Amino acid sequence: MPMVTVTRRLKFNAAHRVHNPAFSDEENSRTFGKCNNAYGHGHNYTLDVSVAGEVDPNTGYVFDLSRLKELVTREVVDAVDHHNLNIDVPFMRDVIPTAENMIVQFWRILEGKIAPGRLVRLVLWETENNYVEYDGR
Amino acid sequence: MPMVTVTRRLKFNAAHRVHNPAFSDEENSRTFGKCNNAYGHGHNYTLDVSVAGEVDPNTGYVFDLSRLKELVTREVVDAVDHHNLNIDVPFMRDVIPTAENMIVQFWRILEGKIAPGRLVRLVLWETENNYVEYDGR
Amino acid sequence: MPMVTVTRRLKFNAAHRVHNPAFSDEENSRTFGKCNNAYGHGHNYTLDVSVAGEVDPNTGYVFDLSRLKELVTREVVDAVDHHNLNIDVPFMRDVIPTAENMIVQFWRILEGKIAPGRLVRLVLWETENNYVEYDGR
Amino acid sequence: MPMVTVTRRLKFNAAHRVHNPAFSDEENSRTFGKCNNAYGHGHNYTLDVSVAGEVDPNTGYVFDLSRLKELVTREVVDAVDHHNLNIDVPFMRDVIPTAENMIVQFWRILEGKIAPGRLVRLVLWETENNYVEYDGR
Amino acid sequence: MPMVTVTRRLKFNAAHRVHNPAFSDEENSRTFGKCNNAYGHGHNYTLDVSVAGEVDPNTGYVFDLSRLKELVTREVVDAVDHHNLNIDVPFMRDVIPTAENMIVQFWRILEGKIAPGRLVRLVLWETENNYVEYDGR
Amino acid sequence: MPMVTVTRRLKFNAAHRVHNPAFSDEENSRTFGKCNNAYGHGHNYTLDVSVAGEVDPNTGYVFDLSRLKELVTREVVDAVDHHNLNIDVPFMRDVIPTAENMIVQFWRILEGKIAPGRLVRLVLWETENNYVEYDGR
Repeated sequence: MPMVTVTRRLKFNAAHRVHNPAFSDEENSRTFGKCNNAYGHGHNYTLDVSVAGEVDPNTGYVFDLSRLKELVTREVVDAVDHHNLNIDVPFMRDVIPTAENMIVQFWRILEGKIAPGRLVRLVLWETENNYVEYDGR
Repeated sequence: MPMVTVTRRLKFNAAHRVHNPAFSDEENSRTFGKCNNAYGHGHNYTLDVSVAGEVDPNTGYVFDLSRLKELVTREVVDAVDHHNLNIDVPFMRDVIPTAENMIVQFWRILEGKIAPGRLVRLVLWETENNYVEYDGR
Repeated sequence: MPMVTVTRRLKFNAAHRVHNPAFSDEENSRTFGKCNNAYGHGHNYTLDVSVAGEVDPNTGYVFDLSRLKELVTREVVDAVDHHNLNIDVPFMRDVIPTAENMIVQFWRILEGKIAPGRLVRLVLWETENNYVEYDGR
Repeated sequence: MPMVTVTRRLKFNAAHRVHNPAFSDEENSRTFGKCNNAYGHGHNYTLDVSVAGEVDPNTGYVFDLSRLKELVTREVVDAVDHHNLNIDVPFMRDVIPTAENMIVQFWRILEGKIAPGRLVRLVLWETENNYVEYDGR
Repeated sequence: MPMVTVTRRLKFNAAHRVHNPAFSDEENSRTFGKCNNAYGHGHNYTLDVSVAGEVDPNTGYVFDLSRLKELVTREVVDAVDHHNLNIDVPFMRDVIPTAENMIVQFWRILEGKIAPGRLVRLVLWETENNYVEYDGR
Repeated sequence: MPMVTVTRRLKFNAAHRVHNPAFSDEENSRTFGKCNNAYGHGHNYTLDVSVAGEVDPNTGYVFDLSRLKELVTREVVDAVDHHNLNIDVPFMRDVIPTAENMIVQFWRILEGKIAPGRLVRLVLWETENNYVEYDGR
């Protein structure tokens, strides 16, 4: 059977401040610029979740995308949507809330929960002009 | 001379919490839902600034858009970009930081500063699915 | 109080065939071209619903957009989403299912149901390259 | 009958140099900045042509959009697409090739050719961040 | 010579009903939800066709994209555009018309027809929020 | 440490004429069609620069994207933005200014300048409907 990759796009809004508590204020400001502003800022994030697998001849699906949407919403999006990534997102507590660290945490949460099919790629857009991607390596 | 309207689009990122300090916690939560979450969330905002005027035969311009970009950046965008609308944006201090109140404040700041040409419309997108517009009335 | 216009964007998918039952086959084909193909085709429609009103000082809202989304979903989107506009959408039964006729029917359904605030504009995109708008006149 | 406005979006690519032959080199450079660079630059333009009219009960159309596309392509787009606005577009010869002057020329060409229906608005995007609009006044 | 991948994006509109004739009505409804609605719905599909190859020093091209557009339009797009995927698209007759099955059929049709250059990836967007991709494996 | 790929999108406007000086006029016209028009045309180009690397635990970054933006602007974008690719872009002088040749030249310029992190992919959009990608092979 052919191996096809299917992707579901989800969106969420969150606040964050790029800040390393181990740095001095001056070091934080020099390293992160305006992304370190004291009271935070925020983004409309876009997350693409890609799952690869054989096409099931009974459904024509690799993975039912409405089920994938529910799964990712419940496991990841509900935890970050309309939240502050520095304060009230448990799985972000010990890392600096950059898109890089977000996507790795998202992967760890989702990795074991996709079956049939295999999680093969996450893409996270922070603005229209920058995004990060991760494939588990 | 023909009257043409020219528009410059600008973007900024900000955090906010939709919250009325005069409401009880319960009333805030009931009225604003997840937009009232305690530690805020944020957006990639898109602002369209429209200026109408006659086309200057010497330049072919109604209003030099690079100058409009500088003016709006200096007067409005720098004050909100990478800031928290509830805390560190002086002109938002006495209003609930909804897109409606933002656009009215932006208008008041920009209105008298556009010449030649006349400010005729502001559009502010909060997400890809909702926006507000104001023409000074 | 300032009058602001707020817009909520909604999406739906539907099938249609542009066909006038009073025309001959040949006349239908000549008038509507491939849009008249016998078994129908379909679109991802985008609907922008705009409501104008004064900003409520207690909420900073003209009209709660999550309530607007629910209202338009219940009254309009649920009736057309994943349906065939020629067959199983009651309010489209007596008109040719063009975007023009769709938007007028949508207006008639929504017009009396928006308060506070006043329905001022509907925009309906059929593809990325064509859209129609209506303001009730 | 209800009055609906229908819009067809078209795209074209063109080169231009924003330059006033009556200015000195220094004056051109100061006024137009990098848009005055000697050998020109270019854009992917997007043009929205809007026509208002009553919905024809026999077709459900205000104006057949495939016919509108043909008309605008023939009258306007073919003249500018893959051309240099300073050199080989006859109707741009006597004006500085800004978006403002382009849209006024487009209007003059199209105005008398739309019937049934009335040309009510042109919008011309030069980049994703700036556009001009004209309604014939 | 460097190996570059070039992509041409094409669009088409089609109706479909996600339905397995071997299932009971109840099983179809439970498996496919509203995508199984009796009279079908439809989409504006976007197809990205990617071809890899060495850059020809005489043309600067890997594959002339206007020729690629013609080829894909003739072989694939014309067969599905403004058609019903369940009824009048010969190569879709024996499969459930999901995006997964569509992209595999498209690949089989196009695979042997691209030369010089090698078909390396197809991406098919069904809505703005979901897409599938296939590379022939 | 996890390996994440980060991407910064940049935009520029340029004029070009697809033309091979070694071809006859007739051969140029037959090969390149309207892209060979004598006085050039132009595009709004979009360039995505992707860098892979381990996430630095001190910053949460693979590569500071504001620094990447500055670097690519200085090394590549400033040379092409608002310029004519056939005439006044030194590194394009000896190649036909197609997107394929542009992306290979961009790679050669940027390849050795990205550290920490490794340049892994460039994508160059010429219009909304065609793009090229290159990974250095």
